[in-house]
Amino acid sequence: MNERLLLRLEIDELNAGYAAALDERRFDDWPGFFLPEGLYKLQARENFDRGLPLALIALEGQGMMKDRVYGITQTIYHGPYYTRHVVGPAQVLGEGSEGRVRAQAHYAVFRTRPGDASEVYNVGRYIDEIECTPAGLKLASRLCVYDSEMVLNSLIYPI
Amino acid sequence: MNERLLLRLEIDELNAGYAAALDERRFDDWPGFFLPEGLYKLQARENFDRGLPLALIALEGQGMMKDRVYGITQTIYHGPYYTRHVVGPAQVLGEGSEGRVRAQAHYAVFRTRPGDASEVYNVGRYIDEIECTPAGLKLASRLCVYDSEMVLNSLIYPI
Amino acid sequence: MNERLLLRLEIDELNAGYAAALDERRFDDWPGFFLPEGLYKLQARENFDRGLPLALIALEGQGMMKDRVYGITQTIYHGPYYTRHVVGPAQVLGEGSEGRVRAQAHYAVFRTRPGDASEVYNVGRYIDEIECTPAGLKLASRLCVYDSEMVLNSLIYPI
Repeated sequence: MNERLLLRLEIDELNAGYAAALDERRFDDWPGFFLPEGLYKLQARENFDRGLPLALIALEGQGMMKDRVYGITQTIYHGPYYTRHVVGPAQVLGEGSEGRVRAQAHYAVFRTRPGDASEVYNVGRYIDEIECTPAGLKLASRLCVYDSEMVLNSLIYPI
Repeated sequence: MNERLLLRLEIDELNAGYAAALDERRFDDWPGFFLPEGLYKLQARENFDRGLPLALIALEGQGMMKDRVYGITQTIYHGPYYTRHVVGPAQVLGEGSEGRVRAQAHYAVFRTRPGDASEVYNVGRYIDEIECTPAGLKLASRLCVYDSEMVLNSLIYPI
Repeated sequence: MNERLLLRLEIDELNAGYAAALDERRFDDWPGFFLPEGLYKLQARENFDRGLPLALIALEGQGMMKDRVYGITQTIYHGPYYTRHVVGPAQVLGEGSEGRVRAQAHYAVFRTRPGDASEVYNVGRYIDEIECTPAGLKLASRLCVYDSEMVLNSLIYPI
């Protein structure tokens, strides 16, 4: 079978596991989808398209991610909400640095606040560099480029 | 090829067929996606997460499903609407009881009422037990856990 | 491996590339997803279901598509917006005319206007006839059947 298609299936699996962990609020599992020195960045499309550096959040390494998880679960005061990720099939873009794979996938995240209807929360795409490790595929970096510069309230949980 | 990935592809296919049948209003085909004694349950996440039993609807076996289809097509008086399911790639979770497969997938269902714009209707995840039969994959049980306890009007058609 | 599943993976790939080209505003790439004489049609479900011919837009061949791209990028005066396609796994329906493949996929397109939140824009399904060519899969025809007869403002960019 075609190597690229097989790889894509594994990336879909990574994305499904990632989405499930977040939506089921297993936040402690989230940093484990990255390499120890992995990068997570959340950036508005407007800035991304212009090559501007400003990002809403940028976490370098699992340490910063764990700190963020501590923040969202223990210290940040915010209105509670559920998220639901629906991620489309991934697209393998080619080879990245150090033998890594470059891939992307479109996502829609829906938000549900207690007693309220579900609504569109954040849509965009994941732009990833992925490494094949003995423990499976891991994100060397995930850049979430979201379409709307207008964020409903605030983005507490990872996208 | 990896067994699990192959299985996942077949589950995606099951989900796509299921979604197409509902959205194209071929409701009579719907019970056929289940085993004769299959279970369909629609439950708010709030109750599911707390382990509470209350479900919005629970149908045990194709007989009850056919009865429900009769209801929604012949007897229930309700405002008409279209549905559109967009289901993400499935995730194989492991082995269930009796050699069945446990899997889940995130879904978003959009509703369109005549003369109105499309809107987010119901988002959540399918939690399935699936059996491989000579006639293909069949749902031994499908539990639809939806995020919003607030339902727009009422849920007439299956999710 | 099952031929049909393999084909489906390639169709998913086609759809992901198609969506990425549109959402990244690489409109000049769009006609290249079709055969030179390919057909693109955008039709409300109401008309499609009744077998009525009226379509919102119908482009026959890459020439008309290029003209449309010229229109949307150079001449049509309209409020700017981003699109984001989330397309579910495709469903191979069978063999079409001339050895082509008939397939369909459900899609949701979200719109984001500057300074505004993302919103549901157009949901429906792609009904495709696809040809295997030396340059990969190409659309002999793509019929986009959308659920809402009520279009937010106007549909400028391809779906």
